[in-house]
Amino acid sequence: MKTIPSTRRTKVNRLPKRASYDRKTIYKILDSSFVCNIGFNIEGQVYITPTAFGRKDDKVYFHGSNKSRMLQSIKEGKDICISVTLVDGIVLARSAFHHSINYRSVIIFGKPEEIKDADEKSRTLEIIMHQILPGRWDDVRKPSGKELDITSVFSLKINEASAKIRTGMPADDKEDLNLNMWSGIIPLNITAAKPVNNIDLKDNIPLPDYVKKYCSCMNENKLSI
Amino acid sequence: MKTIPSTRRTKVNRLPKRASYDRKTIYKILDSSFVCNIGFNIEGQVYITPTAFGRKDDKVYFHGSNKSRMLQSIKEGKDICISVTLVDGIVLARSAFHHSINYRSVIIFGKPEEIKDADEKSRTLEIIMHQILPGRWDDVRKPSGKELDITSVFSLKINEASAKIRTGMPADDKEDLNLNMWSGIIPLNITAAKPVNNIDLKDNIPLPDYVKKYCSCMNENKLSI
Repeated sequence: MKTIPSTRRTKVNRLPKRASYDRKTIYKILDSSFVCNIGFNIEGQVYITPTAFGRKDDKVYFHGSNKSRMLQSIKEGKDICISVTLVDGIVLARSAFHHSINYRSVIIFGKPEEIKDADEKSRTLEIIMHQILPGRWDDVRKPSGKELDITSVFSLKINEASAKIRTGMPADDKEDLNLNMWSGIIPLNITAAKPVNNIDLKDNIPLPDYVKKYCSCMNENKLSI
Repeated sequence: MKTIPSTRRTKVNRLPKRASYDRKTIYKILDSSFVCNIGFNIEGQVYITPTAFGRKDDKVYFHGSNKSRMLQSIKEGKDICISVTLVDGIVLARSAFHHSINYRSVIIFGKPEEIKDADEKSRTLEIIMHQILPGRWDDVRKPSGKELDITSVFSLKINEASAKIRTGMPADDKEDLNLNMWSGIIPLNITAAKPVNNIDLKDNIPLPDYVKKYCSCMNENKLSI
């Protein structure tokens, strides 16, 4: 399905013109990040844990230690809430009231499923690593059986989700347009700085091409000041 | 108090060496951001809403429309959870298992208080705007009585909070140190691009000094590729 039906939980009530339930739009926002915030409940108290994640097809994947509070709560079978937000700029209107932030955000609700099979766990970790840095997985020492044992891995189907997006210029009231202050946008971007070799890196190990590519993609057209 | 006593909710159980309960550390992380994630409960279901915020002294402040789901829930008097996360870099170990992210995060729990007095509301909006862009408030058309009426404003005392920080190089297992892949860090930064004039900006309105200063501060030492 190209569009995800909105529910009581995902329907954007405030400023509904900023909402999207389109799968492609939702996936594109998710794929522009690799850190989500997972909201969960323990005895009626809300917790939020920032966590790395990956998306493939209609699922998001995340992992954690077997001992973490979040995973204990998830194992109790409650619905969680996953939030991903990208801040794109500061929107400076003439009035304080119309100041805003340009952003792209996604929210997903549902009950995660634990992945227990070792091979499937490993494939999931590959998806998460691919989301963070494409190309890295092929280069690294893969997880051992013991490492997989102490890692809990989960998937969440993107069945109940919505996006909310603000772009463009400030929306000033007509009567403010003649005021004499500056108005516009300060675009914000996440950029990569020069990679730093590990202190114990062996001699003659060059920076991999996928790292160079990642850094130049992150910085393309962005360093315009 | 310089240190905030840890509670069942704020004690960092996983990797406690990354934890800090020091007020200065917590404030510094909060002050490096202006977007938080607010977690709240409606009928046992967790929601997360990304929201602009400001900190002054021992309180964080945020606002929203009177009609938002989040503010309705807060008015019911339940504890919320505020999370702020800054992603500082990708940590590339030799093993998949020891890959990590450098980050600074803060979590705060508590019951927000609504601010109802119009003058106090306006001062709070000033704090939030100062957090986003110092200097801007003096320049803008201040909120009208009507605008204040349709805005709900809240404070949350930083009484129950903790920080979690990861910095530095990957921590590889000894037996992996001789492997031949690259290892190190890709630092990530939020940088400002060139401010964009509003399409309807009047002629001869120059870019304010506080915007220039903000952009150069954001980009200092960061454009190193």
